[in-house]
Amino acid sequence: MHIFYAPESSGNTITLSETESRHCIRVLRMTTGSVIKLIDGSGNLYTGYISDPDPLRCKIIVTKTITGFGKRNYRLHIGISPIKNRERFEWFLEKSVEIGIDIITPLICHRSEKNPINESRAGNIIISAIKQSVKAYKPELTKPYLFDEFTDTFNSGVCMITHCSKAFERTKIDSVYSRGRNAVILIGPEGDFTDEEIIRAIERGYIPVHLGESRLRTETAGIAACHSVYFINQ
Amino acid sequence: MHIFYAPESSGNTITLSETESRHCIRVLRMTTGSVIKLIDGSGNLYTGYISDPDPLRCKIIVTKTITGFGKRNYRLHIGISPIKNRERFEWFLEKSVEIGIDIITPLICHRSEKNPINESRAGNIIISAIKQSVKAYKPELTKPYLFDEFTDTFNSGVCMITHCSKAFERTKIDSVYSRGRNAVILIGPEGDFTDEEIIRAIERGYIPVHLGESRLRTETAGIAACHSVYFINQ
Repeated sequence: MHIFYAPESSGNTITLSETESRHCIRVLRMTTGSVIKLIDGSGNLYTGYISDPDPLRCKIIVTKTITGFGKRNYRLHIGISPIKNRERFEWFLEKSVEIGIDIITPLICHRSEKNPINESRAGNIIISAIKQSVKAYKPELTKPYLFDEFTDTFNSGVCMITHCSKAFERTKIDSVYSRGRNAVILIGPEGDFTDEEIIRAIERGYIPVHLGESRLRTETAGIAACHSVYFINQ
Repeated sequence: MHIFYAPESSGNTITLSETESRHCIRVLRMTTGSVIKLIDGSGNLYTGYISDPDPLRCKIIVTKTITGFGKRNYRLHIGISPIKNRERFEWFLEKSVEIGIDIITPLICHRSEKNPINESRAGNIIISAIKQSVKAYKPELTKPYLFDEFTDTFNSGVCMITHCSKAFERTKIDSVYSRGRNAVILIGPEGDFTDEEIIRAIERGYIPVHLGESRLRTETAGIAACHSVYFINQ
């Protein structure tokens, strides 16, 4: 069954956006009475049927609402350096949303590429991924944070910094993180965090962790970190 | 340091392929005496220097050889359905190689898209990924196997089938797979395996497993399975 995205829905009638209406009526050729499911990005999963198949403002009558659909028992926030190849960052976005994440922050590190996120594309990727994987909660993509600003601001839960430097002892994620806890994980740029950044993070309560023996690209490290927390919670 | 790929190397002098020679001499502008590292795909990591900077047949004198570089204590074979969007399959290839895999087999299931792998592109992606992640062993991409043929042929180690059907009890990977063991994992097409395929696999000794609560695309499920085994082994 196709899933539609209708943010800020309330009441028993939902009007789809122009994009979603067009997709529903013109592309999928749905019509009056067709049953569809909707997510609102705030935890609600609706079932309903089309009452007005307007290709610009399609109307749905809600017949069933599940609140808190797919609510996880942990929250995950990943701060990840932008990547030279923007497509790789977008892959990370899509895959981390599919697996399970709550907040993604572009993390501007000393060695980060100066490659701003395309916010509109990124927003569409996130919506498309929650629809595809039927997630009622839409993860938040925050504004970019400078490294120091990030570590000063986000300090609650189990805070971890992944890095490859041999100068600092690192541990495996599952020896510091356990099921049900909130996590913040930092993923560095291709050239890794600087020693100064690692020290700064440690001073702010971040624990250095590794992602195993393999040398991973930034976006792969991001997925590996996201999946580690997911795996521990299953 | 840049890594070059030189299969079937032996002796103290290695001649790079035309592609690698051009990249080394023309693109990276390396010259006589430049120190480089090479992997041969069979477990050797060489260090050497350029003795003849020929842009078609660059010659390297080997000064150090590490055999069995990065050898893992487990072998992982993933049989994964082709995907309609070929780029998604190629992304799985790249990421699974980075994380750690030994054999990848395109698995032709009842509901698989008829989308043949581009073997030449796939081969280049694998080589590029082992160079990037400094892996001395090159994973093998086998010919496609029909589902029945695959489950008849590959039966050793911990054999698992990931699926979403509610008709069969499933368990988490780490309750059947433990560190150091060889694993075979089946990943189905977007429409999932048929019940007949699941029964057939169970009869051949495959254990139904799940990858957690999230509904994952084929390529994401492949990465999640690959990373689960990797994570357990760290």
